[in-house]
Amino acid sequence: MIIEGINTVIETLESGATVEKVAVQKGNFSTRVNKAVSLARERGVRVSFEEKKRLDELSATGRHQGIIAFVTEFSYTSLEDILLANKKKGKPLLLVLLDGIQDPHNLGAILRSADASGADGVVIPKHRSVTVTETVIKVSAGSASHVPVAKEGNINDVIRKLKNNFVNVYGADMGGESVYTTDLTKDTAIIIGGEGFGISHLTANLADKKISLPQLGKVNSLNASVATGILLYEAVRQREGK
Amino acid sequence: MIIEGINTVIETLESGATVEKVAVQKGNFSTRVNKAVSLARERGVRVSFEEKKRLDELSATGRHQGIIAFVTEFSYTSLEDILLANKKKGKPLLLVLLDGIQDPHNLGAILRSADASGADGVVIPKHRSVTVTETVIKVSAGSASHVPVAKEGNINDVIRKLKNNFVNVYGADMGGESVYTTDLTKDTAIIIGGEGFGISHLTANLADKKISLPQLGKVNSLNASVATGILLYEAVRQREGK
Repeated sequence: MIIEGINTVIETLESGATVEKVAVQKGNFSTRVNKAVSLARERGVRVSFEEKKRLDELSATGRHQGIIAFVTEFSYTSLEDILLANKKKGKPLLLVLLDGIQDPHNLGAILRSADASGADGVVIPKHRSVTVTETVIKVSAGSASHVPVAKEGNINDVIRKLKNNFVNVYGADMGGESVYTTDLTKDTAIIIGGEGFGISHLTANLADKKISLPQLGKVNSLNASVATGILLYEAVRQREGK
Repeated sequence: MIIEGINTVIETLESGATVEKVAVQKGNFSTRVNKAVSLARERGVRVSFEEKKRLDELSATGRHQGIIAFVTEFSYTSLEDILLANKKKGKPLLLVLLDGIQDPHNLGAILRSADASGADGVVIPKHRSVTVTETVIKVSAGSASHVPVAKEGNINDVIRKLKNNFVNVYGADMGGESVYTTDLTKDTAIIIGGEGFGISHLTANLADKKISLPQLGKVNSLNASVATGILLYEAVRQREGK
């Protein structure tokens, strides 16, 4: 996909989208163009300097303002498609709902765990959450191409929809019931909160119940992607009947 | 601890040790000093510019060459002390042996999991492994102060010593026996390989057996810290008798 114009290119670079390359018109040294070039270099994006004629050719709108970025769009799916694909498999659903994960390393590691545990997909909110950026794809070690990721407007609407579909929705939260006494063999969605504050109050209350892992240490918290991995694999273990 | 002299300070900054502050002699603008100042700033280390007299006071050797770094040393323990502390607890041992983890985020997350799962400690090799740096401590969210970490010369010697102490030593490796049919309720040490190549051949062969997690996906690998967390919590689950 082509992104044109100085403000849009800067916003795209700042958003963490997967920018392949930035083409800049030769001799354009405006402050904003310099800012875009610095941003691109900071992020390890290749910058090429081209004649105006070349940019005019590349441009779709003709209004490139001397700068064009080439962006790879991650292809999101929808909750409906995840549910539909699961129905076809004829196996109980296993879904991860992320409520505000900010760290691309965590999202990347969660995608790996979702793939390895055979989960049906991961749902992320449209706002206040990291999306599938270049870093996430890199950290996911290839899993981002295999695990369906849905970006949904409101995680609480997702929970309501899942409950209407008779999916057990569990919020991972301190002080919940032990996951080891929770049945994860039926259609299950697990809500994982953000790194800082966990899942929100409203979201936790919408869930069927809160589940937690025993905390035997002094610090009493696990990394969000590690906690997700442990919960997903507890589902794997229970479903294998072990 | 005080580190003095331009080369030693640069090496220390590059090593990832926990540098609290760097004091630089006012008016010293040599290339090497500038390099040290840049390095310190990149790593978010506070730099103060002081009179020569002040540096002379701070210096232990009198050969500070215009630069002194204040370093917090992480306090490692020994394998013997971990085993001794475990004996006193009267509970089965749960130990993590890291064979070449490179990523400080992984080591930090592993320390959190070790704390939360009540593990007795983590052993890292002296060479070809990340040590407990500033980043590791930050990522560990406080766990680095609670989980005993032993830095040992040779991981294979550690395995031999553990086996002599009747500890079951399991290597996490693709194609091993499922962890869900492995008894983790006795004295147990789990070897986790590096991010790139897993555990070495020799190390895997020294272990009592290889254990693995079911891989139901397309990419067939988990993040090293996530895999460690899942294995530690499987021990927790089994030990709780669930």
